[in-house]
Amino acid sequence: MPRFALLIEYHGAPFSGWQRQNDQPSVQGAIEAALAKIEPGEHTIGAAGRTDAGVHATGQVAHCDMSRDWDPFRLSEALNFHLKPHPIAVVKCARVDDEWHARFGALERRYLFRLVARRAPLTSEAGQLWRVNCQLDTAAMQAGADRLIGLHDFTTFRSSICQSKSPVKTLDELTIKEIQRPNGIEYQFYVRARSFLHNQVRSFVGTLERVGAGAWTPDDVTSALEAADRSRCGPVCPPQGLYLAGVQYPADPFA
Amino acid sequence: MPRFALLIEYHGAPFSGWQRQNDQPSVQGAIEAALAKIEPGEHTIGAAGRTDAGVHATGQVAHCDMSRDWDPFRLSEALNFHLKPHPIAVVKCARVDDEWHARFGALERRYLFRLVARRAPLTSEAGQLWRVNCQLDTAAMQAGADRLIGLHDFTTFRSSICQSKSPVKTLDELTIKEIQRPNGIEYQFYVRARSFLHNQVRSFVGTLERVGAGAWTPDDVTSALEAADRSRCGPVCPPQGLYLAGVQYPADPFA
Repeated sequence: MPRFALLIEYHGAPFSGWQRQNDQPSVQGAIEAALAKIEPGEHTIGAAGRTDAGVHATGQVAHCDMSRDWDPFRLSEALNFHLKPHPIAVVKCARVDDEWHARFGALERRYLFRLVARRAPLTSEAGQLWRVNCQLDTAAMQAGADRLIGLHDFTTFRSSICQSKSPVKTLDELTIKEIQRPNGIEYQFYVRARSFLHNQVRSFVGTLERVGAGAWTPDDVTSALEAADRSRCGPVCPPQGLYLAGVQYPADPFA
Repeated sequence: MPRFALLIEYHGAPFSGWQRQNDQPSVQGAIEAALAKIEPGEHTIGAAGRTDAGVHATGQVAHCDMSRDWDPFRLSEALNFHLKPHPIAVVKCARVDDEWHARFGALERRYLFRLVARRAPLTSEAGQLWRVNCQLDTAAMQAGADRLIGLHDFTTFRSSICQSKSPVKTLDELTIKEIQRPNGIEYQFYVRARSFLHNQVRSFVGTLERVGAGAWTPDDVTSALEAADRSRCGPVCPPQGLYLAGVQYPADPFA
């Protein structure tokens, strides 16, 4: 059966997360249902990142197996037609080898977290960023973030229900950019690693926001990390600012 | 009665436009209703720009008269509380002279139009940009835009129901920026003038999109302008990419 890689974008709010669940709307379930409209029968797709409830994607990657050898562009158009009215879109589609695997073949995942400081509620962008009331100290947050780079036991920064075998991971990048917006200041967190623990990015951002607000010092981040104790994590931030922004493979399947 | 200037942001989709109307939701009506929760009675507010149905704002300015001499910050907080769950936010509030007028005192209005070229439907940003399928020629659009700058009879580019006394206006800026986005190319139109005719920005953008697609030449824009004939306008584009981005006064009321 010909295998296709899909580059997928979605707004996470209406879904219980990526993963298919009984009686709950999921991104995986919506895409599998669209595939069944195109080729009747059971479809099971695999994805690079199993995003949580409310988390968005601009660069999720999944693969699907089809009976027919579809023209990739036509397959993406057919999927987008049948995905309506879900806020899910297939932005690229490519034919890949039968052994190509969206999850096991991935070398790196990139996440973006968007945080905005302003008093007033968001309007057009409600549900797309995490809003806090007070301006943050970007340099302090970056100093805290720098303590997390590299190979560490990230027990402090993973959910207690995380199913990963080991809490030891390498964090390759955590860069914070400050952007002046019309009515507030946006802080964009760029996070990059081979793989992530459950709630790791939201644990990082929630902790670093405390540093930016002056409640924690960068040294407190080091202490929390070294404690390898979940109870030492800062507050886990909400999901609506988080985007799975991209996945890297040995060769770009969409090139 | 103390007068206050309000800097207002809103998502235009749920509203029939800025202006209060009987039996239709409007931004003005929602803000006046919130004011009535704060100080019972009739409230009538004036705004710099009367945006159409579906048009957004990041920098609308209005003024209101109150009985009490409110602390401006507390007034904005109270308004935002009572504006929920409407996608309207008061981002700044300031005490101004009793003669200060949001509409008649304005020297300049700035609009932003966001257009994106991509095949796939929008997800998180649905309703925030106008999407077209094919990539556009930015240089050609800018060449067309340059023909519109300055003092002209803009009859071609105003709605047939426009109530402005004269179609002669001065367009001070129409600059197009191309931005690479994760899954598409965005074209941002920055438009600036003392005042605008009804549907003028959407008539400009709809016409310039035709230039970007190669269906019109920049010379066709000049011919259409010089014809001073509404039927010579390109297709008026939809409202969801349009933002009233700012209003300028002799002195910034919020400074």
